[in-house]
Amino acid sequence: MRKVSIIGIGETKMGRLAERSLRDLVREAGNNAIADAGIDKKQISALYVGNFNSQYLCGQGHMGSLVIEALELGNIPAVRTEGACASGSLAFRMAMMGIMAGAYDIALVGGVEKMTHQSTPTVTTAIASAMDYELEAMQGFTFPASFAMIAHRYFHDYRNVKREMGMCAYNAHQNALLNPDAQMQKDVPLEKILAADLIASPLSLFDCSLVTDGAAFVVLAAGDAAKGLKSKHRPIEIVGSGHAGDTLTLASKKAITSFAASKAAASQAYAQAGMKPADIDFAEVHDCFTITQIINTEDLGFFAPGKGGDAVAEGVTARDGKKPINVSGGLKAKGHPIGATGLSQMFEAVTQIRGDAGARQLKKADIGLTHNLGGTAGTCVINILQGS
Amino acid sequence: MRKVSIIGIGETKMGRLAERSLRDLVREAGNNAIADAGIDKKQISALYVGNFNSQYLCGQGHMGSLVIEALELGNIPAVRTEGACASGSLAFRMAMMGIMAGAYDIALVGGVEKMTHQSTPTVTTAIASAMDYELEAMQGFTFPASFAMIAHRYFHDYRNVKREMGMCAYNAHQNALLNPDAQMQKDVPLEKILAADLIASPLSLFDCSLVTDGAAFVVLAAGDAAKGLKSKHRPIEIVGSGHAGDTLTLASKKAITSFAASKAAASQAYAQAGMKPADIDFAEVHDCFTITQIINTEDLGFFAPGKGGDAVAEGVTARDGKKPINVSGGLKAKGHPIGATGLSQMFEAVTQIRGDAGARQLKKADIGLTHNLGGTAGTCVINILQGS
Repeated sequence: MRKVSIIGIGETKMGRLAERSLRDLVREAGNNAIADAGIDKKQISALYVGNFNSQYLCGQGHMGSLVIEALELGNIPAVRTEGACASGSLAFRMAMMGIMAGAYDIALVGGVEKMTHQSTPTVTTAIASAMDYELEAMQGFTFPASFAMIAHRYFHDYRNVKREMGMCAYNAHQNALLNPDAQMQKDVPLEKILAADLIASPLSLFDCSLVTDGAAFVVLAAGDAAKGLKSKHRPIEIVGSGHAGDTLTLASKKAITSFAASKAAASQAYAQAGMKPADIDFAEVHDCFTITQIINTEDLGFFAPGKGGDAVAEGVTARDGKKPINVSGGLKAKGHPIGATGLSQMFEAVTQIRGDAGARQLKKADIGLTHNLGGTAGTCVINILQGS
Repeated sequence: MRKVSIIGIGETKMGRLAERSLRDLVREAGNNAIADAGIDKKQISALYVGNFNSQYLCGQGHMGSLVIEALELGNIPAVRTEGACASGSLAFRMAMMGIMAGAYDIALVGGVEKMTHQSTPTVTTAIASAMDYELEAMQGFTFPASFAMIAHRYFHDYRNVKREMGMCAYNAHQNALLNPDAQMQKDVPLEKILAADLIASPLSLFDCSLVTDGAAFVVLAAGDAAKGLKSKHRPIEIVGSGHAGDTLTLASKKAITSFAASKAAASQAYAQAGMKPADIDFAEVHDCFTITQIINTEDLGFFAPGKGGDAVAEGVTARDGKKPINVSGGLKAKGHPIGATGLSQMFEAVTQIRGDAGARQLKKADIGLTHNLGGTAGTCVINILQGS
């Protein structure tokens, strides 16, 4: 099977970027990734763009063609991918397939979302398109409500981890203080997190990820093609990749304290990499809510079912712990520009493996894992990255 | 390179299907395609869904997961693709890549759109997301206006083909009379077509395609995998495939009486097939407007630039002509369920090649071509199909 590597990365600062257009965000992150790869635009033979819901939020679809125009990419093939919050990782996955198929040698992959200009009800409606409209959203169901039910079930099946969920948020904010691209750079004390207002019991304010504008891009190259390039960085290889799905509605899931899509995707990625969970030095996982982070780390096999909270309490997932999770600040504090999130995870993983993460650099960051979830775990994409 | 074949097809009747949900349309077309392939659902290892804008029109994104649930497909990987009116063909193209990469042996590809329940202004706004929101749609620009400007420029560069455009519509309606899945089955006289009210000069009512609800699915298999299956039909091979892009805005195009994305995609498809335009027996081309059909047949090399109108006038593109175009009735009369359109084109091509087209069966239908365009030609996907 043809090997695929990341040879360039770029992202915008995440946040409330009211004065910036989709086109503007794409230009910054895209051109930065291309410059970082040290390639000429003419070497790019395909484009993949992850975007969740700019059709509703910005009136803008056909994002492949928009990015072609914004970055002046000529007549290369382009596609937008969408799978709720996993939209960016799906673009990455499709790009890998194009390269593995032998159709392309170098592909540009981007993700972008612009959300903060809309009112909270409009954003809530836009996000609700990631669940079933007829059976869930139209009945008043929202994602905080969905993951609140998941948390309650987790508390019932295992134990109450409300305090550990707060510690996930605390760690995220501490990490984001060291990430210049993060949306929230605030030193939030654990007691303030635990005392925050409820959003949907048991989730309170700091258990929820952010509404964010931002873009992130990566340049992918076939392993053989990467060798011939004059990049200033060594290529970071995708040694394992997994992609799985599940039903859309919460009520139809066989289990909700563990996600079948995560487990299936993880199994594929570990098998391809010939690795086990213990081999992973650090991971960026999908913390749309703090309970999700705890469940994800169990589904990834880092901790036993029901033991993810203990790991947080013991400091294992902190930046100086044995299995650092979301050193970037995660969706919770770096931000969650939905279509860009999967690629921003890649940005962090590559930055860490390169040793370029500055104040938040991990001591051991040879092998990183990214875990990107869509909706109520209806889509999951996992990749394992290793420096070559 | 690994060969890919279509082994099953299914589609709904196209039209105003007010009483049917997205889920319902998906179930009918998807299950029909699976049954037509004679496979068990467990043999499907990946899902690709083309959808243009159900997020705005129906509040529903995350269509991959919705289709998994509707068709009970377990934990297979799924993705939604979007590239305006080419969304369905992009799903097809991504599925081909997954198979060519060796990741999957059998993939299900579907497209769906539900539009007619919304008001005309809402549908117009939804469709406008396929152009640039800031630079075009927000200024009041619409697709009829865009293709009207293209038609005027074509008239200026070559000659007035308003009558021939009417003949495209006439042929489409005549063909649709013989297609039980077609939305409009009306025997519309040419004089009525030519006398219809203007929509955006020079385009009048019958120069514009329809607003349609519908779904279409195909089952793809690797050539080697297809041989081991017990399908009742022979596999139809994709002997050539092309995919190209272009800028989003009309004003940025180098030419508008010929589409660079179409020409680039056609060049790829012909080269891969080792064929020239004369080798194609029939084609389904993207007639979002009648002028588009004429331009497409020139870009595909069927007729010289500026001579597409002559070919229509001479009956070459009619069902009994030398190069039958849109025997299905096309977007004009079969209908244009946007995300499903590219796959409905496939449905027709496979049906013709199999010899199953009944009253509209072509005498010679060994090699068919599908041409699917997105927006103002910002995306184009072309495939050449041949019975094996």
